[in-house]
Parts: sequence; structure tokens; C-alpha cells
Amino acid sequence: MKELKKIIEQIKKLNSLLFQKDFLLTWERSIDELKKVLLVAEALRYLREKNISMRCFDSGLAISHFKDKSTRTRFAFASAASSLGLALQDIDESTTQIAHSETVRETSNMISFFAEVIGIRDDIYLNLGHNYMKEVSEAIEDGFREGVLLRRPGVINLQSDLDHPTQTLSDLLYLKKYYGTLENLRGKKIAVTWAYSPSYGKPLSVPQGLITLMTRFGMNVTLAYPKGYNLVPETIKIAEKNAIKSEGKFYVENSIEHAFKDADIVYPKSWAPYNVMRKRTELLKNRDFKELEILEQRCLKENMKYKDWECDEEKMRLTKNNNALYMHCLPADISNVSCENGEVSKRVFEKHRISTYLEAENKPYIIASMILNSAFKDPARVLEKIIKRDTKQLIES
Amino acid sequence: MKELKKIIEQIKKLNSLLFQKDFLLTWERSIDELKKVLLVAEALRYLREKNISMRCFDSGLAISHFKDKSTRTRFAFASAASSLGLALQDIDESTTQIAHSETVRETSNMISFFAEVIGIRDDIYLNLGHNYMKEVSEAIEDGFREGVLLRRPGVINLQSDLDHPTQTLSDLLYLKKYYGTLENLRGKKIAVTWAYSPSYGKPLSVPQGLITLMTRFGMNVTLAYPKGYNLVPETIKIAEKNAIKSEGKFYVENSIEHAFKDADIVYPKSWAPYNVMRKRTELLKNRDFKELEILEQRCLKENMKYKDWECDEEKMRLTKNNNALYMHCLPADISNVSCENGEVSKRVFEKHRISTYLEAENKPYIIASMILNSAFKDPARVLEKIIKRDTKQLIES
Amino acid sequence: MKELKKIIEQIKKLNSLLFQKDFLLTWERSIDELKKVLLVAEALRYLREKNISMRCFDSGLAISHFKDKSTRTRFAFASAASSLGLALQDIDESTTQIAHSETVRETSNMISFFAEVIGIRDDIYLNLGHNYMKEVSEAIEDGFREGVLLRRPGVINLQSDLDHPTQTLSDLLYLKKYYGTLENLRGKKIAVTWAYSPSYGKPLSVPQGLITLMTRFGMNVTLAYPKGYNLVPETIKIAEKNAIKSEGKFYVENSIEHAFKDADIVYPKSWAPYNVMRKRTELLKNRDFKELEILEQRCLKENMKYKDWECDEEKMRLTKNNNALYMHCLPADISNVSCENGEVSKRVFEKHRISTYLEAENKPYIIASMILNSAFKDPARVLEKIIKRDTKQLIES
Repeated sequence: MKELKKIIEQIKKLNSLLFQKDFLLTWERSIDELKKVLLVAEALRYLREKNISMRCFDSGLAISHFKDKSTRTRFAFASAASSLGLALQDIDESTTQIAHSETVRETSNMISFFAEVIGIRDDIYLNLGHNYMKEVSEAIEDGFREGVLLRRPGVINLQSDLDHPTQTLSDLLYLKKYYGTLENLRGKKIAVTWAYSPSYGKPLSVPQGLITLMTRFGMNVTLAYPKGYNLVPETIKIAEKNAIKSEGKFYVENSIEHAFKDADIVYPKSWAPYNVMRKRTELLKNRDFKELEILEQRCLKENMKYKDWECDEEKMRLTKNNNALYMHCLPADISNVSCENGEVSKRVFEKHRISTYLEAENKPYIIASMILNSAFKDPARVLEKIIKRDTKQLIES
Repeated sequence: MKELKKIIEQIKKLNSLLFQKDFLLTWERSIDELKKVLLVAEALRYLREKNISMRCFDSGLAISHFKDKSTRTRFAFASAASSLGLALQDIDESTTQIAHSETVRETSNMISFFAEVIGIRDDIYLNLGHNYMKEVSEAIEDGFREGVLLRRPGVINLQSDLDHPTQTLSDLLYLKKYYGTLENLRGKKIAVTWAYSPSYGKPLSVPQGLITLMTRFGMNVTLAYPKGYNLVPETIKIAEKNAIKSEGKFYVENSIEHAFKDADIVYPKSWAPYNVMRKRTELLKNRDFKELEILEQRCLKENMKYKDWECDEEKMRLTKNNNALYMHCLPADISNVSCENGEVSKRVFEKHRISTYLEAENKPYIIASMILNSAFKDPARVLEKIIKRDTKQLIES
Repeated sequence: MKELKKIIEQIKKLNSLLFQKDFLLTWERSIDELKKVLLVAEALRYLREKNISMRCFDSGLAISHFKDKSTRTRFAFASAASSLGLALQDIDESTTQIAHSETVRETSNMISFFAEVIGIRDDIYLNLGHNYMKEVSEAIEDGFREGVLLRRPGVINLQSDLDHPTQTLSDLLYLKKYYGTLENLRGKKIAVTWAYSPSYGKPLSVPQGLITLMTRFGMNVTLAYPKGYNLVPETIKIAEKNAIKSEGKFYVENSIEHAFKDADIVYPKSWAPYNVMRKRTELLKNRDFKELEILEQRCLKENMKYKDWECDEEKMRLTKNNNALYMHCLPADISNVSCENGEVSKRVFEKHRISTYLEAENKPYIIASMILNSAFKDPARVLEKIIKRDTKQLIES
């Protein structure tokens, strides 16, 4: 319990304004706010380990809206919500009337009378995902101000076209545990690199989220991709500014080997080029399925040129002490397991498999922390109340 | 708390038999029973405002069966169920075996061993929706009598071909709050009118529910629609009888302007003509998709003749003091927002938008009240227990 | 309460190792373990009857994965999970990323960080369903051992190609109540027979589950089917061994009349021949839809030869005192109700209908018992804690 009390003391020292706020982009949140999300997540993990119930709602809805397929984020959101005491209610567009011409403003209010949080995944269309979340957020804010909603549910980005904060904060929490403190990340080199995958249209949010977040903690962030596989330009600018402010470094390269050289951490992952995503969004809007098919074929062919962008043992030998930490948001495309040629060789993945699972384990706690931080003014006191109440998650026998 | 205790005192004075009963049609329920549903809903709203948990089940299932698409009623049912402590379990016909030849009697019992309430929406087929609900209700009643079911879950109509009680009681609760008391509704003129929409096949349950319910409280109910857009004849007869009994009035007109004249409240909403719905039900049964297509085209064309049945500022000027309350069950077809020409002009809707949202806000409480009234013999005592227990919905920090 | 305490005393006397274990096949579990599942189920039934909440989790996920359609097992699992305090989270392959190449090992861990139980139905493909469950089980076991999972959720077979333990243990519990004790089953004759149905591809798990389970309690189990309608050979061998060990009997016949002769219990149910299921699995793997269509037509035609394998009043007169207990897992194919010719005549079914419903009622308790036995080391003490806590399921009014 001492450890938990230490965490609570640290939370109390932070300046943060997450109450009744959304979590859409990490770069909209201060360092203290990010630290608070990590600390509350750690506290919740501790509670679960000690079989102490983290429930802080006696009832209420957690609404999820997955515009794209999702397994781990879906289960992480469900885990977080139910652990805090919320019932999950998913918006399934096939069974609701949302499609038909109703405004986002209206729907957002109509479903939120009893909502305590709204989680949204919308990452397919460039320029649309984040904007949709903002629209929901503004509608909710309006509804709350006008007295339509008794409470102000926070909106959580479960992956947009710009950022994937529940993923990258899980990654950051893993690094914090791995290196002991956030301060220890200073100067560490992380290689965020493109990797080959026989697929098309993978979102850009993970690399964008990583370069914008890790540059805030004084890390040496090296982004590498084959020529043409650019990210959304805005996120590059943010990463550059962050690196200057935190006295870290940010480089962009076109060689995976250069990026891996002396890296402490490697995060090789496939994504689609920014220009392709723009083209694709345009074609999808126009429902030009013929051109979409042509675009897909062209891209898959283009991808094939970079089959050597695979994280294999040879490349891993370039890293610091031949021993970099391998990270991935999962599922990884593993060569000779899930495909012939993929992002990572079977041997490298197998060596780091358990570590990637533990990286993923953080997500439900990060999401629970975001919910708690948005719903309660004073999370430190909530945690103290929970400790004092001491309800067991599993009845003791 | 004084306000809440006053509500409880009023509940105690009412004669009602809602325990172990269904809520399918408002005209099957006495005035005292309707009043009780409103009062308990108000009490629950009060509890939520004061952060007092309204949970009265420690566990149990709330089953929903939406044969048609639904957003707000779906979320209202989920909100109500989870607030009272029930877990939602939806019957999804695509994942169950129900379709294949099993009897309604059997399925109803098989899913209800742990059910505390069953909510059903079935409004597409004339003469079928209500009958289906009755069949489920009888099966449940049988199962309970035979000892198959330990408890008797109430069946709640979430919209049928005949009535939409969770909607119209939400509307009535809004009017009660707006005018201070139900008694103040006496003599008030409400114009329930058809309105133009570029759509086809909208259910008749809302206007039918409104004319049969509002006539019970001494209101002047004026129903108006273009020639041919009749409702189910049975509901007209019920409205007529109710008006006589309550010393109110009930008129049927074919002019929206006449209906709006001096109205205190207007409720303009599109619906499909009774005869079209009958024809459509028959064709659907026969799976005559060619004739269905022809019917739809013919109706859309017929509709177009009545584009001027739009609730605009000019018509609103006809109402009492140029200032009638505008009501709608939402989503409304708003001209130049959700369609070119619709039920209501943008300016009228925008003026009353927040008010329609607050009208909608009542639905989760109305449904929660129906569940509570059906599951507990003495709702007043349940509320007293809840106050005494004083569990917070959100842990206090 | 005395009755409940007696049950708890019986539980305490049993030797069983269900803690952190799966429930995939009844023949992997000892007699004591099976008895414990029944006794805990009876205790939970008693608690619900007395309005005592059986909640033993304050939060947590119950994951279900139905690869095939299901109504009663789906609702039974939902009922069990929510009664114990778990939130249901279904794996819907249409909304998850599972399909795309990810390993079962990875997915199983990714969804299980907060899981307390995983229920799986997978009965279509011979040799695949049970193997899939084993794969999930091993992945979970690994994850738990490696520290990826804080707790070890049990995997429950909700019907596989080999066994259907939640069904057959519900049947066994029904028989225990019907005859007073498990000991009284000794020597009783149960006729597990094939019956005609105008359908194709029905799983073999119920008859296989019955012959392997009932032979363990000294019963005279007579299996009867038309020539060619064999079961998976392995299950026949298990039934034979069990009968010898328990000093019961196990016969295989090709006449329903012989099987019914002097039977105490009859369980007539349709299934597809083992060889057809093997052929079908092979064709499905090869996606040979043309041959599948031919196979289906051939089988339906073959089935038609055995229309007289219907459980009618004439055959029931062959049974012990003309008064055997009729059992079925439901839904039954009832002649002149759900089809022209089916497994059972309308009169026989109607006479025993309520009894089959009460047989089905056991399933949620059996599943809840399996969850509790797998999650808690000492279920007897859990029950004692629950009695002492005395939380009401419905608030008392």
C-alpha cells in the first residue's frame, strides 16, 4: 500500500485540467496532464493486483463508437469501463437511425443523457476522423452548457487520422516502467520506422502519435521511411517543436539501418503514404471504386519494393549493444507466420513477444485513467476513497 | 430532499396495479397508473441530479428486442436498465436461432429465466407489432404461473403499430413540467398534425399515441392531416371516447392552418397513410418486392402534393400569442438541414431545438419508471429505501 | 437456509480441482468435480429464489465467442455472468480484426487482461471446435504463467463438435431433482435416440455428451439410431468404458422401439451422421459449395427414409409403465408445429412441455457454477460469505 500512497502523493503535486475535458490529441495536453494519466493508470493497475475494486461509478453508460474494426482497443475500452462500474453501450450504425440525415449535434446529445464517457475510433479518412471527434465534443459541450446534459461526458480518441493517444500512452507507460522513470527516457534513441507489410491503407496515427509524444520527453526520436511514405505534415512540425522544447532530438531519415543504428528502442510498423491516404479519402468520398481498386493495386506493387524493410536479426544487431527493445502496437505482420514477408521476422518477434504483450496490457488502465480523470475533479481523492472503502473485486474466500 | 418526499407522498395516494404488469398501450392503464409512471420518473430524475444511485437490482437482465432500427429509444432503454442495476441483453435475430420455426411461447421463456424486463420495438407491420408483444406477454405470464419463471418480467412497448407509450409519456411529462401540473393541461389546445417529409412508411404510433393520451387530460386535441392520411380507426374511436370522459375535445381536420389556429402546442410530424401501411404489410407478407417498389414511388409522389404542410414561421404566427410550444419526437426532417423540404423550417426548429432535446431527456426516466413499477409492488417504499441507503452514483471526492 | 447449509456441507466433502481450470469435456472431470458443479448450481438457484444476490465479482469481463448461432446458451451465459457480477463482452468476428491472420495465441491474451471467464461455442466443424477451445486454453495458460495475465480465466465449452457439457449437466441436474439423488439414477434406463427432422447438419454433441455422461452414474444407457447415423467413434469407446467402471450398461441399437422398451427416460433428438459431418467439414474447408449442395440434398433425402423415428404416443406406450420422462435440449422439431414431420408429435411434446422448460432452466445455474468453480479456490466459503453478506438481488420494499 505504501507504493500506492506514493503514487497518490505524486498525483497531488501535478497541475492539470482534465476534469470535464476530452482526450483527443496528446499535444493538446500538458506534460503534467500526461503524467497524471500515467500515474492514475499505475494506481489502478496496483488496485487490481491487490484485488481492490476500482469502481467509482455505481452505474452509468460508457458509449463506444467504432467506425472501423477493432479488437484490442474494443476490449480495452470495455475492460476499463466495466472496471470503473460503467455499462458499455456500443453505437452500431447498422441498428441505429444515425445514418439517415440526423445531425451529429443532435445524436450526440440524444445518446448522452446517462453517458459518462464516449470513446470513438475513426481513422480511415484523412481529415475526417479528428474532425468528427471535435464535432461530437462541441455538441456535448453545448448540450452540457444548455442544461440538456446533467453531466459532461469526456470524449476519448480511440484512434483518429491524426493520433492514437490510448496506444502511445500505453507505450510510454511501458517505457516508464522499463527504464524506471520518465526522466530516464531523456537521450534514449527510439527508431520509429516504416516496415513492409503486404497490406494497404494502414492508418498513420501510430507513427504520428509516437513522434509527437516521445519528443516531449527529451528522447532522440528518429523517424525513417522509404521516400514517399510521408506522414501528415502537421505532425512532423509538432514533433520538431517538441524536440526543441524538451531538448530532445528529432530526425527524419530514409534508411531503416540508419535509424536502427545505436537505437535503444525500435518500433517498426507499416503505414500507408500520406499522399495515398489523401487520394484514397477523395476517391472514397466520390465512391469511385474503380479508381480505388487501381490505387490499391498500385500501392501494393510500390510496397513490394521495400520488402527489405523488415525488422530481422541482422538489423537488430545494429542497435545499442545489439539489444534494443522491440515495440509494436500489435497485431504485427510476422514473416512466415501471418504472411510470407512482413514487418518483423519470426525470430525477432518471438524473442520479444511477451514484452509486446505486456506493452499492450497497459491500454485498459490508460483508458480507465482517462475516464476517471475526465469524470472526477480530484482523482487523488477518488483513489484515497477507494482504498478506504476497500471493496474486493473478487469476494474473498 | 423535501421536493422528493413530496413526490413520494403523491405516489402513495395513487391506486395502481402496475406490479407484474406490462406496459403496451396507455389506454389499458388507469389515470392513476399513468400519474404514477410520471411521478416515479420525476423522482428518479431528482435522484440522478443529486448524485444518488437509483439502483434497485443488484443484478438481472433487461432484454431488448428491436425489430426496427432505433437510436434514442435504444439508448434510453440501456440508460434506464443500467441505472437500475440491470445488464442489457439484446436479441439480435442474426445471431440467434429464433428465426427457425421455434414458437414465440418457447423462446420467450427460454431467454427469461433471469430477465427482469423485456422491451420490444416492432412498428413496421400493421396488426403485427402489438400482437407480437401480446404473444410474448402471454407466454411470460404462462411461464410464471407454471413455475418456469421465478419472477414475472414486465413487457414494455418501445413502439408498436398502435402506440408508443415511452415517447408519449415523455411528451406528457414535458408538458406537465412546462405547465406546472397535469391539471393545467385542461383546455390547452394541442395540434397533432401531419407534416411533409420526403420519406415513406413512417409509423403511425406517435400521432395515435398522442391523440389517445392527451385526450385523457381534458386537452383540446386537434388532429390534422391531408385527405387520405388516416390513422388506425380504432385509435380515433379511443380518442373520441377519452375526450368525452375527460371533458376535453377531439377534432379531426384536413387543414394544418386550422389546427394551428390558437394552438398552445403544435406537434407536426410525418406519417404514412393507414391504407398504404395496410397495403404495404400485405405486400411484405407476400414478398412482392416489385409491387412494393411501385407503392413506394406512388406514395412519395402523393406526398409531394403536400409540401406546404411544413411547420414554418408563418404558420407558427397562427398559434396562441404567436408563441405555441413546438414539440417533436425527433429526429425531425428539417428543411435545408436534413432535406430540401421537410416537416419543419430551420428557423422554427432552431428556436425550439433545446426544448425538443429536453422533451427527449425524459425518456430514460419514463422507461426506468415503467421497469420499477412493474418489478416492485411498492415503488414509494423502494424510493424511501434508496434515499435512506444514500449510495452515490459517482463516488464522492 | 438449512437446505442451503446442507448443500454447502456436501460441497466441502468433495475432492475437486476446478480452480483455474477449464470445462471442455465432462470426461476430463472427476465424479467429485461433476458433483460439485451440480451442488454449487443448486446453491445458486436457492439464493436466487430467496432474493439473495449471488454476486461474487464486483467487476470483470465474461467473454463469449459464438461461432454459431445460439439463443438459449447465449442468454444462459449472459444470465450467469451478470448474476455473478461480470459484464458480458461478445467477440463478434464482423467487428473485430481477428479474422486477419492474427494468431489465436495472441488474440486470446489481448482480450483477456480483465477477463474472468471465456465461453466458446464452436460445433460446426468436426475436429475443429474442441481443438480451437484447447488452443485458446493453452494460450491463456501460457499468458498466465508468463505474467501477461493477472488472473487465469477459465474456458467453458458452450458446445463443441465433441461435447456439450453445459447442456448435459443441466440434464443431469434435472434428473437428480426428478429422482431425488444421483444415486437413484443407478439402473434407470435412458434411451438416447436419433429422431427424424427435415434438417441437415445438426451437431452430434448432445447425444455424445449424454452417452459419455450418463454412463458414469450407473445408468442403463441405450443409444439408438438408423444404420449409418454413427457418432464420433471416440465417444462410443468412452461411454463403453464408463459403463463398465460405474457398473452401468451401454448398448447401441438400430431400433427406436427397442430403445424405448421399458425406458425410464427418453431423449429422442436428430443429428447428422458422423460420415456426413466429416465429408461436410472437408468440403467446407475446400469451399466446394457445389458438392456441399449435393451432399445436403442427398442427406435430406436419406433422412426421409426414417420419418417413422418420431417420438409419438404409440412409442411412448412402450416405455416403463407407459410413463417415461421425455427430455430434449430444445428447440425440438415438433410435428405439425414447427414442421410437417419432426422429432416428436405435438401431443407428446405438449404433455411434457413444461418439464422440458424446467430442464432448460438449469443451464444458467450450471454455467454460473462453472464460472464460480473456476474463479474461486473454495466455492463453499464463497457461498458462506454470500449468505453472511445477505445483499438482496432486488431491493426489499
